[in-house]
Amino acid sequence: MKNYQGYLIDLDGTMYRGTEKIEEASDFIYRLHKKGIPYLFVTNNSSRTPEQVAKKLNDFEIPATPNQVFTTSMATAQYIYELKPHASIYVIGEEGIKDALQKKGFQFKDEHPDFVVVGIDREINYEKLSLACLAVRSGATFISTNADIALPTERGFLPGNGSITSVITVSTQTEPVFIGKPESIIMEQALAFLGTKKEETIMVGDFYDTDIMAGIRSGMDTLLVHTGVTTKEQLKEKEIQPTYSIESLSEWNI
Amino acid sequence: MKNYQGYLIDLDGTMYRGTEKIEEASDFIYRLHKKGIPYLFVTNNSSRTPEQVAKKLNDFEIPATPNQVFTTSMATAQYIYELKPHASIYVIGEEGIKDALQKKGFQFKDEHPDFVVVGIDREINYEKLSLACLAVRSGATFISTNADIALPTERGFLPGNGSITSVITVSTQTEPVFIGKPESIIMEQALAFLGTKKEETIMVGDFYDTDIMAGIRSGMDTLLVHTGVTTKEQLKEKEIQPTYSIESLSEWNI
Repeated sequence: MKNYQGYLIDLDGTMYRGTEKIEEASDFIYRLHKKGIPYLFVTNNSSRTPEQVAKKLNDFEIPATPNQVFTTSMATAQYIYELKPHASIYVIGEEGIKDALQKKGFQFKDEHPDFVVVGIDREINYEKLSLACLAVRSGATFISTNADIALPTERGFLPGNGSITSVITVSTQTEPVFIGKPESIIMEQALAFLGTKKEETIMVGDFYDTDIMAGIRSGMDTLLVHTGVTTKEQLKEKEIQPTYSIESLSEWNI
Repeated sequence: MKNYQGYLIDLDGTMYRGTEKIEEASDFIYRLHKKGIPYLFVTNNSSRTPEQVAKKLNDFEIPATPNQVFTTSMATAQYIYELKPHASIYVIGEEGIKDALQKKGFQFKDEHPDFVVVGIDREINYEKLSLACLAVRSGATFISTNADIALPTERGFLPGNGSITSVITVSTQTEPVFIGKPESIIMEQALAFLGTKKEETIMVGDFYDTDIMAGIRSGMDTLLVHTGVTTKEQLKEKEIQPTYSIESLSEWNI
């Protein structure tokens, strides 16, 4: 096992399960913290600001500042900024994505924007979807924060951003650029934000299809922890295995 | 050219264009009417009742009674009735689909219904989509009135029912049964409703992908009229040609 100099770490299923604490997570982060090893939480959740995410982690006794949180909303804003710093954007989404785009100084616009951005929006309605479709048909670049098909909740699996995004994909017959895990766009940016080298950094998460695939696609080592979505049995079926897989973060030496 | 004994006829693009009259349509229907040849309007629009559709046709001076209108909502209700006459249904949709399901005596139910039915709903919201996803994940049979990706309006192409349906398809990874054109489900029912033989009946419409394909798939002769979606150039590309194609309904002898 390498001595990794940087950690990119998933949230739900890895640091907590919904509103439920994962006991070993807090100790794991404290150990990183004590050794002074840089870490960054990387999340496909576009609805919360980094401040809100850090607060939630602190509530689970996990040391985290807003600067240690990298959301797909931040990655989306950065991606657009690199393409067109003064872009106009029509955005579907909640506080996290709107906050990230505003921090970059983008102008919001309902008609003929340069970009359409779709993030999870539990206030979605037909007019919002219509404006997005009209803009994409008028030539706006179509971007979606992530392709997650479902949101795990206490009621069961509710529609995720990937499924909401599909309304526009199907109606306009235009594929979006997805930013979040498993895409390497968010990973490259997270690495640059953390400031460690790819070869010395490891991606930690519970869901093979997003977390581990994101690490693999961006050429990083990966650690799958079976405290969330992907079971041992499911992992066996995967052609490309993570670098490491463990039952709990307490097994991991830092 | 055969002397057809029955006509199945599309609406938008064939009888009118949105709120615009198609001059030859009224005369065409009057000629059918005068010869006593039975005709039935067959529409993928699930939002209106047959009474509302007949009224719209009358406003364009086209002779039509509610009994001469067959909507995908009626086909959906009949389809479910044949599977389970006392089914419980969770429905997303507007007046037309709710009216058709109520006329069959079905019970509406938000949780654990036997069927989930999705028709165009311009009051769509996250809670409606969530209830549909939860029900499909709980085993409800998933049905969609039609797969149309876009609604032509004066503002441009807005999301059609096929694109709204995709939220549930993508989120639950379950394909729906589509009822409307180009599926043969609606065509078989329309034929039975009209009461003429398949070999003596012709399907008339402007859109190759729905109207003409519906006729072809259900083994009927077809007449494409270039007053709506499909252009002559687009038609040339199609492998299977309609039985006839004309510029305007005034060219057609009855």
